[in-house]
Amino acid sequence: MERAGTVAIVGVGLIGGSIGLGLKARKAAARIVGIGRDRAKLDEAVRLGAIDEGTTDLASGVAGAEIAVVCTPVDRIAGDVRAVADAGPRELLITDAGSTKHRIVVDVERHAAARSRFVAAHPIAGSERQGAAFGRADLFDGRPCVLTPTARTPGDRVERAGVFWSSLGASVFIMSPADHDEALALTSHLPHAVASVLAASVPSAALRLAAGAYRDSTRVAAADAGLWTAIFRENRGPLLDAIGRFQDRLSALKFALLADDDDAIRACWESGREHRLDYERQDADLKRKDHRPLD
Amino acid sequence: MERAGTVAIVGVGLIGGSIGLGLKARKAAARIVGIGRDRAKLDEAVRLGAIDEGTTDLASGVAGAEIAVVCTPVDRIAGDVRAVADAGPRELLITDAGSTKHRIVVDVERHAAARSRFVAAHPIAGSERQGAAFGRADLFDGRPCVLTPTARTPGDRVERAGVFWSSLGASVFIMSPADHDEALALTSHLPHAVASVLAASVPSAALRLAAGAYRDSTRVAAADAGLWTAIFRENRGPLLDAIGRFQDRLSALKFALLADDDDAIRACWESGREHRLDYERQDADLKRKDHRPLD
Repeated sequence: MERAGTVAIVGVGLIGGSIGLGLKARKAAARIVGIGRDRAKLDEAVRLGAIDEGTTDLASGVAGAEIAVVCTPVDRIAGDVRAVADAGPRELLITDAGSTKHRIVVDVERHAAARSRFVAAHPIAGSERQGAAFGRADLFDGRPCVLTPTARTPGDRVERAGVFWSSLGASVFIMSPADHDEALALTSHLPHAVASVLAASVPSAALRLAAGAYRDSTRVAAADAGLWTAIFRENRGPLLDAIGRFQDRLSALKFALLADDDDAIRACWESGREHRLDYERQDADLKRKDHRPLD
Repeated sequence: MERAGTVAIVGVGLIGGSIGLGLKARKAAARIVGIGRDRAKLDEAVRLGAIDEGTTDLASGVAGAEIAVVCTPVDRIAGDVRAVADAGPRELLITDAGSTKHRIVVDVERHAAARSRFVAAHPIAGSERQGAAFGRADLFDGRPCVLTPTARTPGDRVERAGVFWSSLGASVFIMSPADHDEALALTSHLPHAVASVLAASVPSAALRLAAGAYRDSTRVAAADAGLWTAIFRENRGPLLDAIGRFQDRLSALKFALLADDDDAIRACWESGREHRLDYERQDADLKRKDHRPLD
């Protein structure tokens, strides 16, 4: 395992904090600098051991860095990547941790200094909680991390980004930005949208009778409104398609119920059950790490 | 705490097995008889310590019982309650553990011997797993149990049913069968329907990129198709209403996305977030047991 020199983390919340904790736990970086707008949060991240030092000055924060990871909300990532590129050294690798990729990549690629240093990434792990205090050193361990380089992304940077994310225990996959966004619209953004709508559909007076299905199905609805509004807007095309797929299947179940059609209701349920069992198998495979990385 | 004499459990699966384990752990019954159709499953329940003895003969199983709990699938409960009433002693209390109540109560009340002994109940706890091997002695501890007596249910039986379900650690609530079914359509059946449709909406090829939202939101989709087809059919009216509520809210989110309306998307998310936080508060209250039972 190669050890990185200085890693700059821009935005030290749950994700940025977990990256810092993970790098520390694995001794994968010589020094970790946190960059943020809120002095108190940076101080807390130092206390938590997620970063070695914190600064509100982006230019000085990235000056000596080998790698910069932008962990700000998706609607701020492209601008932050450009600012880091302008301030950072020539050999800097810039990567990010945003849940959407296409618009960020298009935006970054308009800027030559950013384009030549940036490899877009999405480590697929998180929490409905916010802040470095909820960070975990093992958040990315055994989880997928998708890199979305384009034809214009330098190969050496892709290589270095793969090494970096692997050093946190992630399994690295490569996809196009558009394919990533389409897949994540289905696997993450749709489940978040459905969780939120489901949570809102049950009146307060009935909630004392809620059991495990409501509890688990709506967990992520507690996440921050600003973060998720931004993700939904960044990926609205693929998300609208995914919602359409879901609506069609829900209508099929509704018509089966209206017809009181035992076979049709059962077929709907069996389809969901098969997909869930398929997921459980794939998840177990991923945890065993017996898939091929970088495929 | 009063200790029951002989308790007969009709249907020794996850729920019936958990009732047996719970009664044992709390020494709340002198003797537990399991009644089922499958000799091997009854033998397993004896080995697991969920029942003292098992029989496939309903009449002999309930002959000496003080309480009989019918834990079969919802579409078999009314018939089993009638059979138990015909075979059991005059003083028998019959209760059940079905997830729906209105149709069961209507059916049972057509039969005088059953009506005079039966108190419909729904202990709100469960799992996507099947079988006594997944049972837990504490499954009902701190959970709500709804009794749905009608004007025709004898008061002494309601009293005894409250004592029985409380002896398993449950907090007893009383509602009408129709109010129960309407509430549970929202708090349980809708979340199950949504989980199943969501699971089916994500293609297999994308599942390796699924994270926590998909994992938790679709957990219950792994449950048995026969059980859930029966629950959906028993409660189709209220479930159709609940699906309609959900569809309206999902359409609102979709239109907000189509309009790329930041405020409207955020308002949808905030509504879900507030309901989720409301649920978390109510759930914490229930666990502290500082609500009034039997209210």
